[in-house]
Amino acid sequence: MRISVLNGPNLNLLGLREPHIYGRVRLEDIELAVRARAGEAQVDLSWYQTNYEGEFVDLIQGLPGSADGSLINAAALTHGSLAVRDALLAVGIPFVEVHLSNIFAREEERRYSVMADLAVGVIAGFGAASYLLGLDALLGYLRERDA
Amino acid sequence: MRISVLNGPNLNLLGLREPHIYGRVRLEDIELAVRARAGEAQVDLSWYQTNYEGEFVDLIQGLPGSADGSLINAAALTHGSLAVRDALLAVGIPFVEVHLSNIFAREEERRYSVMADLAVGVIAGFGAASYLLGLDALLGYLRERDA
Amino acid sequence: MRISVLNGPNLNLLGLREPHIYGRVRLEDIELAVRARAGEAQVDLSWYQTNYEGEFVDLIQGLPGSADGSLINAAALTHGSLAVRDALLAVGIPFVEVHLSNIFAREEERRYSVMADLAVGVIAGFGAASYLLGLDALLGYLRERDA
Amino acid sequence: MRISVLNGPNLNLLGLREPHIYGRVRLEDIELAVRARAGEAQVDLSWYQTNYEGEFVDLIQGLPGSADGSLINAAALTHGSLAVRDALLAVGIPFVEVHLSNIFAREEERRYSVMADLAVGVIAGFGAASYLLGLDALLGYLRERDA
Amino acid sequence: MRISVLNGPNLNLLGLREPHIYGRVRLEDIELAVRARAGEAQVDLSWYQTNYEGEFVDLIQGLPGSADGSLINAAALTHGSLAVRDALLAVGIPFVEVHLSNIFAREEERRYSVMADLAVGVIAGFGAASYLLGLDALLGYLRERDA
Amino acid sequence: MRISVLNGPNLNLLGLREPHIYGRVRLEDIELAVRARAGEAQVDLSWYQTNYEGEFVDLIQGLPGSADGSLINAAALTHGSLAVRDALLAVGIPFVEVHLSNIFAREEERRYSVMADLAVGVIAGFGAASYLLGLDALLGYLRERDA
Amino acid sequence: MRISVLNGPNLNLLGLREPHIYGRVRLEDIELAVRARAGEAQVDLSWYQTNYEGEFVDLIQGLPGSADGSLINAAALTHGSLAVRDALLAVGIPFVEVHLSNIFAREEERRYSVMADLAVGVIAGFGAASYLLGLDALLGYLRERDA
Amino acid sequence: MRISVLNGPNLNLLGLREPHIYGRVRLEDIELAVRARAGEAQVDLSWYQTNYEGEFVDLIQGLPGSADGSLINAAALTHGSLAVRDALLAVGIPFVEVHLSNIFAREEERRYSVMADLAVGVIAGFGAASYLLGLDALLGYLRERDA
Amino acid sequence: MRISVLNGPNLNLLGLREPHIYGRVRLEDIELAVRARAGEAQVDLSWYQTNYEGEFVDLIQGLPGSADGSLINAAALTHGSLAVRDALLAVGIPFVEVHLSNIFAREEERRYSVMADLAVGVIAGFGAASYLLGLDALLGYLRERDA
Amino acid sequence: MRISVLNGPNLNLLGLREPHIYGRVRLEDIELAVRARAGEAQVDLSWYQTNYEGEFVDLIQGLPGSADGSLINAAALTHGSLAVRDALLAVGIPFVEVHLSNIFAREEERRYSVMADLAVGVIAGFGAASYLLGLDALLGYLRERDA
Amino acid sequence: MRISVLNGPNLNLLGLREPHIYGRVRLEDIELAVRARAGEAQVDLSWYQTNYEGEFVDLIQGLPGSADGSLINAAALTHGSLAVRDALLAVGIPFVEVHLSNIFAREEERRYSVMADLAVGVIAGFGAASYLLGLDALLGYLRERDA
Amino acid sequence: MRISVLNGPNLNLLGLREPHIYGRVRLEDIELAVRARAGEAQVDLSWYQTNYEGEFVDLIQGLPGSADGSLINAAALTHGSLAVRDALLAVGIPFVEVHLSNIFAREEERRYSVMADLAVGVIAGFGAASYLLGLDALLGYLRERDA
Repeated sequence: MRISVLNGPNLNLLGLREPHIYGRVRLEDIELAVRARAGEAQVDLSWYQTNYEGEFVDLIQGLPGSADGSLINAAALTHGSLAVRDALLAVGIPFVEVHLSNIFAREEERRYSVMADLAVGVIAGFGAASYLLGLDALLGYLRERDA
Repeated sequence: MRISVLNGPNLNLLGLREPHIYGRVRLEDIELAVRARAGEAQVDLSWYQTNYEGEFVDLIQGLPGSADGSLINAAALTHGSLAVRDALLAVGIPFVEVHLSNIFAREEERRYSVMADLAVGVIAGFGAASYLLGLDALLGYLRERDA
Repeated sequence: MRISVLNGPNLNLLGLREPHIYGRVRLEDIELAVRARAGEAQVDLSWYQTNYEGEFVDLIQGLPGSADGSLINAAALTHGSLAVRDALLAVGIPFVEVHLSNIFAREEERRYSVMADLAVGVIAGFGAASYLLGLDALLGYLRERDA
Repeated sequence: MRISVLNGPNLNLLGLREPHIYGRVRLEDIELAVRARAGEAQVDLSWYQTNYEGEFVDLIQGLPGSADGSLINAAALTHGSLAVRDALLAVGIPFVEVHLSNIFAREEERRYSVMADLAVGVIAGFGAASYLLGLDALLGYLRERDA
Repeated sequence: MRISVLNGPNLNLLGLREPHIYGRVRLEDIELAVRARAGEAQVDLSWYQTNYEGEFVDLIQGLPGSADGSLINAAALTHGSLAVRDALLAVGIPFVEVHLSNIFAREEERRYSVMADLAVGVIAGFGAASYLLGLDALLGYLRERDA
Repeated sequence: MRISVLNGPNLNLLGLREPHIYGRVRLEDIELAVRARAGEAQVDLSWYQTNYEGEFVDLIQGLPGSADGSLINAAALTHGSLAVRDALLAVGIPFVEVHLSNIFAREEERRYSVMADLAVGVIAGFGAASYLLGLDALLGYLRERDA
Repeated sequence: MRISVLNGPNLNLLGLREPHIYGRVRLEDIELAVRARAGEAQVDLSWYQTNYEGEFVDLIQGLPGSADGSLINAAALTHGSLAVRDALLAVGIPFVEVHLSNIFAREEERRYSVMADLAVGVIAGFGAASYLLGLDALLGYLRERDA
Repeated sequence: MRISVLNGPNLNLLGLREPHIYGRVRLEDIELAVRARAGEAQVDLSWYQTNYEGEFVDLIQGLPGSADGSLINAAALTHGSLAVRDALLAVGIPFVEVHLSNIFAREEERRYSVMADLAVGVIAGFGAASYLLGLDALLGYLRERDA
Repeated sequence: MRISVLNGPNLNLLGLREPHIYGRVRLEDIELAVRARAGEAQVDLSWYQTNYEGEFVDLIQGLPGSADGSLINAAALTHGSLAVRDALLAVGIPFVEVHLSNIFAREEERRYSVMADLAVGVIAGFGAASYLLGLDALLGYLRERDA
Repeated sequence: MRISVLNGPNLNLLGLREPHIYGRVRLEDIELAVRARAGEAQVDLSWYQTNYEGEFVDLIQGLPGSADGSLINAAALTHGSLAVRDALLAVGIPFVEVHLSNIFAREEERRYSVMADLAVGVIAGFGAASYLLGLDALLGYLRERDA
Repeated sequence: MRISVLNGPNLNLLGLREPHIYGRVRLEDIELAVRARAGEAQVDLSWYQTNYEGEFVDLIQGLPGSADGSLINAAALTHGSLAVRDALLAVGIPFVEVHLSNIFAREEERRYSVMADLAVGVIAGFGAASYLLGLDALLGYLRERDA
Repeated sequence: MRISVLNGPNLNLLGLREPHIYGRVRLEDIELAVRARAGEAQVDLSWYQTNYEGEFVDLIQGLPGSADGSLINAAALTHGSLAVRDALLAVGIPFVEVHLSNIFAREEERRYSVMADLAVGVIAGFGAASYLLGLDALLGYLRERDA
């Protein structure tokens, strides 16, 4: 089983950025934890971060053939990028949308997602644990589908 | 650790109702699975379902003193009940909002939640597994908070 | 053939309430007329009224097995109760929506119905006769469907 | 008693047009059924169809002196013709608005009617039977008014 | 000097129609008064009324070559006919928009005019006198323009 | 003179709930103060609280015959319950709407009241004193009306 | 017969201000023309201009006892001054609203008038002639009322 | 204790103005009643009325040093004057907003107040008694605050 | 292959009308050019123009049996005629929507089309060439469909 | 070179008013600093403050003939005064809009300006320095224009 | 004559992506067909595709000096990129907007284009043929302009 | 003191682009002028321009450690880029928002800024001088803060 994790703009600043919302954990710390959980589950894990919408689209386009599913935290691109939506529509790969913070408790323009209706499901508000829960949920979905 | 699970209107019909959206699992099946997971985690679990908004408010009012946290699937009350919101504001108990279906892929009026901004987090779209992931997420939150 | 008639909040006040809109006929008078017409058509008729949204949901949930179709005047619940809508979606029983007054000639918030798109049809504005026309329409629909 | 039935644009195509919404009955079939019912009730019936808004206005203007009431299915004119509304306001004749389909279950722009608040009542969603129920309702109204 | 007066749908009913808004004067009475005033001013007057939007467009298209200006009471066409607007844009003839009633004190949808911004000016609210004032205003405008 | 005081959902939590908005006074304390003032004014006082919208409707329906006027704090039902509005319209009894907090200084959805236009008047923002001022105002209104 | 003409903010700049909209005529020129027409009609005329909303209200309050009717060009106050509306409601004197330009052809916020529904009628778009037509219209109205 | 009462535009017309809304009491009558109640309570009372927004701002700016609290009926300025709001924010003096009529039962644009969220509380709908209840409420507030 | 070209209101004025938008070409000139191109492609061409919405509906209703496809420039009817939309839905014939001007660079209300979603495609902005391109596109579509 | 500085309602309270937003500097302090900078630049400076909208309009009307440009801080009048806008349109004098605070970081209704589109430019958020920067910007603009 | 064709995000997936909307043709196939037609017309053709908004802006900026006109299919960038609009405004080069699918028959957010009002014209809905028709239209426009 | 100036999409075209709005000055000219002023003030200046949103985010992320403050003209990214807003929130560095043109006098969608509420202040409308004024304002802010 191969899983790709895609991280959007500014997530490379995690741990520095607005700690009252996102906590002090760095993106590298989350990557380590997710890799550990993936190792236990014998999953092959890829991990990406980019600040470029175009590169994010490239990454999604590259999913077929290299991954069976994806965890996606598109950050600011979540709320307005039709190009990301088009790419997800095109590749048609199952993914789980994750967010560190509870986006439903934030400003109005952060509550709408251009991709949530395409996702298997959404998990938001549990900090780094959102990624771990998301990995469990995605694996559960893929295993049930393939059963 | 004591956890209360609150289920809103029409969930007692689960398994009968619109199987293309909710699947064929009954609410009793979910209860059994959640009780099993709770048993492993040595958690004391209470389980409720009601079609009455007034009784749902009573259940929330009864949480302090009887539970350390709550899993809430308010069903149709999710989208418009100010009385439920007031009760949650009043008791101030940590809860995770769960949904069987991916509410973000459904009709417009099912995408807004009167309680999502009060929740620790939201998990939607994984069928019965939403409850199990929600229980894990809630326990993780409570243990970290109390650490 | 079994038909259930469900009446929502405040209809028990009929005849007392705003006679310039609803006239002076009491709900009991309507029940008598509908029972007479049902008798002629050899239909088995049940008649309910409640001021509780929760009980209204219970009544709808009880329709399968006890009725072949339903006449529904949900009164104030018509305009905003997602729980009633969910219940109607769940039971999937054919029903005709009736109103005493012409709701399209009333205030803005009384023109929208959460259930009209689920109904076989809608009849409004003929006072007590709305129920009789509704019964005829429902029976016509059921007989044609079963033909 | 004299009743005029007015049919708006494109109804002459009935039976050919979108059968999943309107069924396969032709307008002539409906006319025959309505004439039969009118005959039983000793009602003098006139029947018109036009694709021109201006002619529809002329027909409404001609109602006083030639009819005691009217059944109106204005089709597309239902949703936006102020000229039709003005004509109905001017002649002040009692009419029942009928529709073959349940307009409340259709697209947004087909749910608003410029004349519903002027009607005695509205009947929608019963196919050809909408006309028969409408005739009954209109006759009931006129007889009660004249009693 | 040649002036054309164009009257829109339902104005032929004037005097019968909603007398609490429009008074009891008939369109013929207004025509006589306007003709008298035109005679005094040595103006050649044409007078039209139609219930057809298409014919109204034809009338406007015929203005160049047959009239130096126009008084227009488009009635219901005032509020939504782009075809009338296009015709007025095309012929570019000076006109005054008149209304019997004060349309700004009426329902929302009667306050917007598709042609008011193309008019020399607007006069509303003085009953039949709106036409006489409008004729004076139009003649004043034409004479000043030609001076 | 008989006065009924009706209290809506969650008011039984008063003194526990969000003290920065509502203060630490319990509903029982307010009841005592209101009863004292009523005693001085020789008024017969009834006092109710419920978390059920249906029961609230029942209470309003019971006012005629048992009370001359009412003080109503409908809490969360204030902002969206058409059933409560219908009941008040039906019984037509004079009432004063009271609120502990200044609802006009709170969130948007708490500023609209479904019943304020039916009330004799509105008093908000004085904590428990809102009830006492409301009682004075209601008695003044009733005495002047009956003078 | 006594008539008062009230002019609002910035009209004292007329002739200097945006000549492509208002022309080169000064307010004094208009006053002379209106006084001449008033003289012919044996009307006693008062003329005021102010840039202060408060003084405008004072002028309206002074109308009863000193005038039988009024011509009002409230300029910028037309579009948002509730105080002017209140004063007009209070004095209840017949008035005609006049505007130099065709306000219906201008920016959105200049199309709404807080007083148009209180006026006998509205005249706009004829430059200085709007005042003269307005005077005629007002006198016609007053004479007919007193006939 | 010193209290200032500020009255806004058109209140000097009270008793003349729309008696079906405001009754026949004059502002002088209210002033006498308020002065009597103030005398009993040994309160030093100032009373002002103005039709000018600028003067109303001056009055508010003069409150510190001359008054301990204020009763404010800003009339039409209630609904749109940011300058009045700024002045109240600047002086920070406790005030009670009063209205003669129930503004919540009036037109849409009269339901919003630019100052209600800054007030201790709001009292509306009791005619002249609104001022007396407001004085009681304000004194109660000030005494409790200073206790 | 038979193709019908339908032209809506005011297009008969082409060449006279607003040449800065539509140019100086007359509708007859366009007809000649389209007939020439049709001749080369051995297509049987019909050509219509009307100012009447009703006649436009008749023309569309007549398409089945007389044409294999249609070029439609509905002019002002493009933006608001539900009757035209209904007729197109009813006949279900393939058509290409053409416009002389680039409607997307014009006023807001000219950008919405009631029929664009029913068309094979849309071509706008190339003057008379829009018709020629539209003919090519329609023939290409029909030939590919029939291949 | 002559420059006029116009200050709107409540700015005379500066230094007292909400110091967390505006700081403790008084308007007199700002005037001194601006006069010093003007002296260095050999500019003739006039300085005004008023709480009256009418007087503000008078001041703007007086600019031609007495000033070559203006710095304007209209305070609360910035956000809703059409009379101020009309006056600025009429006099057509170049001006720079200045604000002490960053109005874009404040409440919604303080972000819109009725005059910003008429200004040479806007400077906001630098406290008293906004005036000095505004003076530099205005002088730069005037010198470049006159070069 | 030199023409540049610019293709936006995800068009490189054409033929893989949602074939029920876009068909099975690959972008390379379209390029070949367009190059063939360009060859016949002796036009020098450049062809680009990118998933990066920034690179798309670079390509547009490079048009002057290297192309006489452009065919643009901006895909997802069509609907929201102000940077693309700014670049097109800046270079001022004539272009035709093309789309494979009929965007007017798709979801709401795909119907608005940030560039359509800047284009010579728009062609949508003919699959690969949209590019060929677009090339013809663009060449026609350029030749007529240069004639 | 180190200051970074960040310029967004299409600003590299300055001087070529729409000179009636932005003038004929090139970005290089502005850079020279700003560097000169920075030299006088002994400020270390960095200068960047990019057409890529992703690179703009990278530049903002690089500010901490390399600059004490920033001048930002984000051009088209000003109006809709949440990624830019997130980056500015994350780095928390003081910046002044500058614009060459008066954005408040332009189209609606250019008036909203995603970053204005995060800025120290905003300066718009003075062409190249906006940068020089912005530099002065930023230095003044930083020196006062550090005093």
